[in-house]
Amino acid sequence: MSGPAEFAPAASKAELEEGTRLSPRFDANGLVTAVVTDDATGDLLMVAHMNAEALDLTLRTGTAHYFSRSRGSLWKKGETSGALQTVREVRVDCDQDAVWLKVAVAKPEDTCHTGRTSCFYRKVDLAGDGRMLIETEARASS
Amino acid sequence: MSGPAEFAPAASKAELEEGTRLSPRFDANGLVTAVVTDDATGDLLMVAHMNAEALDLTLRTGTAHYFSRSRGSLWKKGETSGALQTVREVRVDCDQDAVWLKVAVAKPEDTCHTGRTSCFYRKVDLAGDGRMLIETEARASS
Repeated sequence: MSGPAEFAPAASKAELEEGTRLSPRFDANGLVTAVVTDDATGDLLMVAHMNAEALDLTLRTGTAHYFSRSRGSLWKKGETSGALQTVREVRVDCDQDAVWLKVAVAKPEDTCHTGRTSCFYRKVDLAGDGRMLIETEARASS
Repeated sequence: MSGPAEFAPAASKAELEEGTRLSPRFDANGLVTAVVTDDATGDLLMVAHMNAEALDLTLRTGTAHYFSRSRGSLWKKGETSGALQTVREVRVDCDQDAVWLKVAVAKPEDTCHTGRTSCFYRKVDLAGDGRMLIETEARASS
């Protein structure tokens, strides 16, 4: 692969973990995990995936792009719903198979396709048998 | 599969997204993504994976267990390093293929195997070409 989406692989484990070059370790499907939090509140908004093209576009445009595994295609988050994500900071983890995006959201109530500000609107009832969920945010739209 | 690690699959998309039963959607490798934040500070600590056994043990014991993809085995986080994670809250996302753990860490400086409090100790230099990393936390141990 060549062109703007190219990322140089790390030459060693030391370089991967301690180096100063972004060298994402894409999995067998060509993806890294993306964790997305609200830059203002710190809330976890969603977990998604990125291929090289999505990561490159995100870094070059400052607007979050992902790879939709269900549709098998590039996904500019919010292109349809309006819940665009402006990237404030990007971090990478030790072995570079996950990235952390801190974003500002244009239309928070549509961050989750179910009509909520976060995809994590249910918590596990740990006081029970750990199999039941408690809703913590009602959907704004139906 | 039967026994304590069993989770009932959701009967429909509506039940998956709006239901009150935990019905994790394990991928082809039997894993869900786990996002782990510090319950006190909100900081993102790590991203890991869980199979049904790891998730069940986490929910039953209150101590985080993962599945190590590199070792191919159950991984009680901190068993060797001492950086055990006590689970304060567990959330699940809309399509139940990711869980969010809010934890208290026993030995924060060993959360990352590189000797840091978080695996996300490097940020991408967005002012540059988006290919360089800036270290934000030096390793405490070598």
